[in-house]
Amino acid sequence: MKLLFDAQGGDHAPEEIVEGAKLAQRELGIAVGLIGNTDVLAPMAESIPLHHAGEVIENNEDPAMALRRKKDASLTKGLALVKDGTYDGFISAGSTGALLAGGLFIVGRIPGIKRAVLPTPIPTVKGTTYVVDSGANMDTTPELLLQFAVMGSEYAKVKGIDNPRIGLLNVGEEAHKGNALVKKTYELLQDSDLNFIGNVEARTLFEGICDVLVTDGFAGNVLLKTTEGVASYVFHEIKASLAGLEPHEQQVVAKILGGFKHKVSYEEVGGALLLGINGILIKAHGSSKRRAIFNAAKEAQTIYEQNIVTHIKQVMEDL
Amino acid sequence: MKLLFDAQGGDHAPEEIVEGAKLAQRELGIAVGLIGNTDVLAPMAESIPLHHAGEVIENNEDPAMALRRKKDASLTKGLALVKDGTYDGFISAGSTGALLAGGLFIVGRIPGIKRAVLPTPIPTVKGTTYVVDSGANMDTTPELLLQFAVMGSEYAKVKGIDNPRIGLLNVGEEAHKGNALVKKTYELLQDSDLNFIGNVEARTLFEGICDVLVTDGFAGNVLLKTTEGVASYVFHEIKASLAGLEPHEQQVVAKILGGFKHKVSYEEVGGALLLGINGILIKAHGSSKRRAIFNAAKEAQTIYEQNIVTHIKQVMEDL
Repeated sequence: MKLLFDAQGGDHAPEEIVEGAKLAQRELGIAVGLIGNTDVLAPMAESIPLHHAGEVIENNEDPAMALRRKKDASLTKGLALVKDGTYDGFISAGSTGALLAGGLFIVGRIPGIKRAVLPTPIPTVKGTTYVVDSGANMDTTPELLLQFAVMGSEYAKVKGIDNPRIGLLNVGEEAHKGNALVKKTYELLQDSDLNFIGNVEARTLFEGICDVLVTDGFAGNVLLKTTEGVASYVFHEIKASLAGLEPHEQQVVAKILGGFKHKVSYEEVGGALLLGINGILIKAHGSSKRRAIFNAAKEAQTIYEQNIVTHIKQVMEDL
Repeated sequence: MKLLFDAQGGDHAPEEIVEGAKLAQRELGIAVGLIGNTDVLAPMAESIPLHHAGEVIENNEDPAMALRRKKDASLTKGLALVKDGTYDGFISAGSTGALLAGGLFIVGRIPGIKRAVLPTPIPTVKGTTYVVDSGANMDTTPELLLQFAVMGSEYAKVKGIDNPRIGLLNVGEEAHKGNALVKKTYELLQDSDLNFIGNVEARTLFEGICDVLVTDGFAGNVLLKTTEGVASYVFHEIKASLAGLEPHEQQVVAKILGGFKHKVSYEEVGGALLLGINGILIKAHGSSKRRAIFNAAKEAQTIYEQNIVTHIKQVMEDL
């Protein structure tokens, strides 16, 4: 596999990106490349091939506008190298919106797929549930949600789950519950070949009753951010109640909280695949250091070897 | 104030409802009445006036259908006694959907108000935020959300909050974020006389940055159920990590958790007002015992004395 790293994106670029690429080259045995300011990269890149890009797309820029204007940005040029087959995949810790827009406009979608989604893992009592979509698509249709389910199912398979259980995020378990969007989506999922288990309430989601949770990006994002908000709130309240305890008792509680907090922060995830793009684009978290970049590369390699893009193409052809 | 209690609704009807009504009569100094099977109620009701109703609307019935068919249900007949002015308010621990539908069809809406909402309090680091709507309205419009905001603001005032801060649930803080519904709602709220503070993410909601959170019933319900699900999950995980601790250490942690768990369970709330109905209808939780029924009556009294229905009428006339 040939993997390109965006050396301009993220809080710790370029040093940590470069070191992450070196780790991936050494430990994963894949071909890597770096794109960014070659004057800066040359002294630290050792044997890694470099591609020059003189501009950077910032997080606060309008993605579509930035892509049009910054022809020399690492993202714009890097995605073109995926499109033309020079690389099989691309990792960026920069703007999610820009990577998504660039994926759609430059690399393009898998034939038949109308939108790209961000699958986000959330921890449950029994393992992990993947939320599709977690925020890339605000206004959707039942047909789009069916596609999210198809892509989410294939993604879960890549993650080692056989016959993934597909749940539909809703306000109740009964088939007639919900808004117009989910009612119609329920019918489409029921008529599909997917392993659809029905409506899932956010209340029982964390018991691990489905592997893939289908939802529009608005509700999915609300769910994820509520998860983070409630976890922070619970920790805050528990900490506040420590005041009356002995120091050694406080240590007991602090230890339990410390080992657990990161599990419910969805931002801690190393890298997320943009599902639906005709190539492997991985969004690494903005605060990623070398180990997180390496983990994102490992995710890219798994996805490459499992050939998820081809699988989705096939399912879409058969649909 | 004259308050009618639905003696048929809830897990502990009729005994606990009757005892709750007695508490309200004695401690709040209001006139109370009971509606239900008078043969059953007579031996326990003491001096409380009784109204006969021979049927019960169950939780699993279609609300609109049940209202049409069960003319002798406690809910159907009880709401008619509110409509004709015999009582100022009605408390039921029965079906939420039936109370909502009955409120709309039998009692009617406040002039100008198009939908009724369920405001639900959620705990924050700084106090309480009221979510409108929390699940009564699945498909909405920007104009409806503006009305939810108006009603939520008046409700927060009744709860003792001056100049309530109105937030709009969204996936980001910037004005351009979100789906078509919230983008347009943002504009309407900004143009209104409300104290609109902008978009609020579920992540920061629990820091207490707004008093009223405006959202459609689908997203609001997802938010509330996620809150409950995450809290249960966190408690489950913390308990699981207790295994390695000494017994006295486990007790420390158990004590902290026990005193806190009910705070994040939205179902623990005693009674919720159906906002927008031209009368005071309070939904008590299905598992309510006498103290919860009493608390619901206290809520009804506060709302009656603060005259929220008249306030909303005035705001709607001025809008």
